[in-house]
Amino acid sequence: MSPLGLIAGEGVLPLLVARGARAEGRQVVCAAFRGHAWPELREECDEFHWVGTLRLSSWIRVLRAGGCHEAVMVGRVAKHRMYDRWRYFRYIPDWRTARLWFTVLRHDKRPYSILKAVMSELSSAGVNLIDQTRYCREHLATPGVMTRRQPTEAQWIDIHFGWQAGQQLSRLDIGQAIAVKDRDVIAVEALEGTDAMIRRAGELCPVGGWTLIKVSNTQYDMRVDVPTIGATTIERLHEARAGCVVLEAGKTLIAEKQKVIELADRYRIAVVGYDASVCPPPPG
Amino acid sequence: MSPLGLIAGEGVLPLLVARGARAEGRQVVCAAFRGHAWPELREECDEFHWVGTLRLSSWIRVLRAGGCHEAVMVGRVAKHRMYDRWRYFRYIPDWRTARLWFTVLRHDKRPYSILKAVMSELSSAGVNLIDQTRYCREHLATPGVMTRRQPTEAQWIDIHFGWQAGQQLSRLDIGQAIAVKDRDVIAVEALEGTDAMIRRAGELCPVGGWTLIKVSNTQYDMRVDVPTIGATTIERLHEARAGCVVLEAGKTLIAEKQKVIELADRYRIAVVGYDASVCPPPPG
Repeated sequence: MSPLGLIAGEGVLPLLVARGARAEGRQVVCAAFRGHAWPELREECDEFHWVGTLRLSSWIRVLRAGGCHEAVMVGRVAKHRMYDRWRYFRYIPDWRTARLWFTVLRHDKRPYSILKAVMSELSSAGVNLIDQTRYCREHLATPGVMTRRQPTEAQWIDIHFGWQAGQQLSRLDIGQAIAVKDRDVIAVEALEGTDAMIRRAGELCPVGGWTLIKVSNTQYDMRVDVPTIGATTIERLHEARAGCVVLEAGKTLIAEKQKVIELADRYRIAVVGYDASVCPPPPG
Repeated sequence: MSPLGLIAGEGVLPLLVARGARAEGRQVVCAAFRGHAWPELREECDEFHWVGTLRLSSWIRVLRAGGCHEAVMVGRVAKHRMYDRWRYFRYIPDWRTARLWFTVLRHDKRPYSILKAVMSELSSAGVNLIDQTRYCREHLATPGVMTRRQPTEAQWIDIHFGWQAGQQLSRLDIGQAIAVKDRDVIAVEALEGTDAMIRRAGELCPVGGWTLIKVSNTQYDMRVDVPTIGATTIERLHEARAGCVVLEAGKTLIAEKQKVIELADRYRIAVVGYDASVCPPPPG
């Protein structure tokens, strides 16, 4: 089997993927985003190269030289930096990236449009992206309440209400999360990222006990954007007095799942894996 | 004709309504929200009483004593204060309000649910709310570009894209505005209010030139929540480097319209009244 390419952004997920792939006996060749990927990722890979986030040609060079036909692209890149006025100086995009940016993406910089363009560019160079969760399935959210802590009755109402609203929002390809309290949407995430949205929800709802609904903005394309939470998310939720977090079962990653669930229980935050079979909509 | 009741929150709109009604020869009896309504409103009304925002019985008492069968409810009440943990001490709701809050609204505090409950309570006491714009029509947004400043080509693309996204969002009864740049939704307003959302969009998009789309979250019930902008909105947009603001023609109020349009032109912000006849969707 050819080595697995790993295009790596921020966070622990690239490490989990590298470990998972090597545990199954597959070599890992990593193109790590400079300024985003964690340096300790180097220890987990057979080959490791730093690349610029906007230098698509470099990623392709690294993966092709490593003999990869398949790759996982995983880990966060703070998208809002793309709107910074000095962005071109900081990243200096290469010709492939510049061509995408100024032709295909000229007036359409929605997250999924960018990712689709990147996927098709990689694919034309012989590298196909595969499901991000392929080598870290044990970290996926499971159906039902994962914590010992259970949602309150009022939170269950917010869960059902918020899940419907979140599903409708996700079709608009805007953000990845909403905050709900008493069937009122307190905050909607767009470009600012989930952490900033959690902080805002906490300020807007000091009485606490609100629910975070995590959705995907990309029709759940498992190759490019699996919704993910980690220990930091739980810390932020605790600071913002949230009472519950809802994830789609089987389609959301909990990076370092066991640690995260323990932490949530300590803070009395219920973690729910939403699934139509275990969480039927309320009657009426 | 019976006197017009005026239930007044924050801002210049209650003054414009009072002036408009009296210009048409109608007396005005005002129940003004303490801590929200402007004191100078007193000069514009025939009768004037301060009331608590959460004291529905007081509003009704004032309006009935004044002989009102019709009322306009207008001006902002910062909804996020409702989630403050000391809210009950600060406002001390009366029995009518408490009954609504703890029965009808127990698990449903979405803006329009609250307003519908308030309307039906007023109506059962013989006071019917009428269209907020009835006495200030000259301040409604008109179709087309209202400023000398025209949107750029890229902004027109954002306007059409953002209008579609905004319409879909408005059906979810969440917020009143979204910010768009290059067909990407930068920020979505929920409980924080438009000003806070504008500030966030400015931080997330320092390159500027983004477009604010103002929508309604209540299926345009002209009795309770006509989307409104004013001079302050334009100041905030300027600080946040916005390039354009889009309002629904005929259904959005521009408080002190002439002043606002002049200010927008000075800051080179295009103000567009969206209307299917003058702003047809782009081909394809």
